[in-house]
Amino acid sequence: MRVNAYAAPAAGQPLAPTVIERRDVGSNDVLIHIEYAGICHSDIHTVNGDWGPQPFPVVPGHEIVGTVTEVGAAVSTHEVGDRVGVGCMVNSCGECTNCRNGDEQYCLDGMVPTYAGTDRDGTTTQGGYSTHVVVDADYVLSVPDGLDPAAAAPLLCAGITTYAPLRRWGAGPGRKVAIVGLGGLGHMAVRIAHALGAEVTVLSQSLKKQEDGLRLGADHYHATSDPDTFEQLAGRFDLIVNTVSAPIDVDAYLGLLAVDGTLVNVGAPAEPLSLNVFSLIGARRSYAGSMIGGIALTQEMLDFCAEHRIGAEVEVIPADQVNEAYERVLASDVRYRFVIDTATLA
Amino acid sequence: MRVNAYAAPAAGQPLAPTVIERRDVGSNDVLIHIEYAGICHSDIHTVNGDWGPQPFPVVPGHEIVGTVTEVGAAVSTHEVGDRVGVGCMVNSCGECTNCRNGDEQYCLDGMVPTYAGTDRDGTTTQGGYSTHVVVDADYVLSVPDGLDPAAAAPLLCAGITTYAPLRRWGAGPGRKVAIVGLGGLGHMAVRIAHALGAEVTVLSQSLKKQEDGLRLGADHYHATSDPDTFEQLAGRFDLIVNTVSAPIDVDAYLGLLAVDGTLVNVGAPAEPLSLNVFSLIGARRSYAGSMIGGIALTQEMLDFCAEHRIGAEVEVIPADQVNEAYERVLASDVRYRFVIDTATLA
Repeated sequence: MRVNAYAAPAAGQPLAPTVIERRDVGSNDVLIHIEYAGICHSDIHTVNGDWGPQPFPVVPGHEIVGTVTEVGAAVSTHEVGDRVGVGCMVNSCGECTNCRNGDEQYCLDGMVPTYAGTDRDGTTTQGGYSTHVVVDADYVLSVPDGLDPAAAAPLLCAGITTYAPLRRWGAGPGRKVAIVGLGGLGHMAVRIAHALGAEVTVLSQSLKKQEDGLRLGADHYHATSDPDTFEQLAGRFDLIVNTVSAPIDVDAYLGLLAVDGTLVNVGAPAEPLSLNVFSLIGARRSYAGSMIGGIALTQEMLDFCAEHRIGAEVEVIPADQVNEAYERVLASDVRYRFVIDTATLA
Repeated sequence: MRVNAYAAPAAGQPLAPTVIERRDVGSNDVLIHIEYAGICHSDIHTVNGDWGPQPFPVVPGHEIVGTVTEVGAAVSTHEVGDRVGVGCMVNSCGECTNCRNGDEQYCLDGMVPTYAGTDRDGTTTQGGYSTHVVVDADYVLSVPDGLDPAAAAPLLCAGITTYAPLRRWGAGPGRKVAIVGLGGLGHMAVRIAHALGAEVTVLSQSLKKQEDGLRLGADHYHATSDPDTFEQLAGRFDLIVNTVSAPIDVDAYLGLLAVDGTLVNVGAPAEPLSLNVFSLIGARRSYAGSMIGGIALTQEMLDFCAEHRIGAEVEVIPADQVNEAYERVLASDVRYRFVIDTATLA
């Protein structure tokens, strides 16, 4: 099956329309007619070659929402007409300890990323900036009716990336949670943490987006460029989710945690960070990291978001504006996620 | 009350016999006739001035076991003749969140260390290298009958320092726990982790103490000087307790953790460490720190050790050998803890 897509032809080159081949629908496969594909910062890193050589041409996109148009004979979990989603992975071994524990993203054999990855049949995966995709049913999520499909697309990456650490480290009633950065990930984290019942503080470089932050559900908003912030909030939080990939002063943020508090990075700067161990020992604190989430947890997140009417704040664009959108993402000029209307590729 | 003691007269000077004043027994105080005082590496750091200026003369010693010889009118928890212990702290505010949660060591007002600290009445605390000490009853532990008093002394610091993280991060049946370093702290950690039911691995620089490690309860023993160790044990452990205060290659040790695993430092090197955040994100790992433990947990540890017949391996010395013992501790020439027989001070 040949389908329209938008691809980066080489590292650092603008994306351009192309036609790619999708595999035949296997017995456990689902053919999805894509409606929306979110633009994640990772898409940009990948096609720019920031993360090493890639199997160009690369069709990015791992925040996919669409409807099922065909299912294989063995598929019982999805039906034609269902609204479904696909996130950052489309396969894994299914047999290792981590897969069996529902942590397919940590598959010991290596999970198969939705694009620029090598699938278990040896083919190269191509992502959601496209009209259709064929995905193993076990990696296809159900998108509940209550969710707007465009606003739901970013949940498949930005949503699960922030939901997973919030759940893992117990964000909920009586817990003070800080979210560092109010971008694509941060704005989801604020909404989810608020819906989980936590007291939510945004720590952003400036107060520029304060009004947005409070509207999204934050109880407090502080500028990290103000040194008073670190003094005033010392020992305050049970959990800090850092959505900023740039290097941070780890000790300064650890100092904001109460006893038993955890600072979690969901992104990783390229260079190593420096850390004074006394920042940990001084209050039994932890510095942790988290990467997306397993399939079952992703489904839980979608159901939770539907129940609480949580979607991303999106700017829907036609496919031919993707290069301009990339530039605006790099300039932090988006509130808060671009989503491609893939009908414009048809 | 004037009592015999061994004190460091100034930074870096050898310890020498002296006489110090102990306060009158207040209504909530316990007067303890000290039998044994363990020598902790912190004693050496403190009197050497490694941790900044100190209120010399300093009588070190925060691993104290003795018997009660007098109690204040308000004391109901200890009686004359009871065998008791005192650890690293002798007071705290008792009112802050951390004190109320049983984490007196993290008192927001600052816990009062057993020596070289300023007590809440403004006096300077003096430690266990002495014949007697007066301590608030709330900071006095009961030493159960089953414990040998000399072998119990190091439990008050080395024991609780390792018991606390092993309990906090769930060492027990079905869990793979590694202990880095087989010194005063490490040998306690091995015994306690084994008694808790975990599968215990020692990670030591060489295989020199392998026989001891296995005898103490380790199931496996590996040399960290062998690079194969890090390859062979990759992703293996649920918990690693690092008892070594010298800087470590944090990323290398994090690589030994399974998904959701935690590396805990119980000591802190003076200089900051370098950490690649991907080591955390790549398997939802945590890097944590832990400092001794609260009073209730210390009592739990003593009861646990009595139940499981766990003490330190000690070399009992007369007080006049303390300077020689310090040199041997610095040369790692002790298996595994020196304990001063304070009857030699009488």
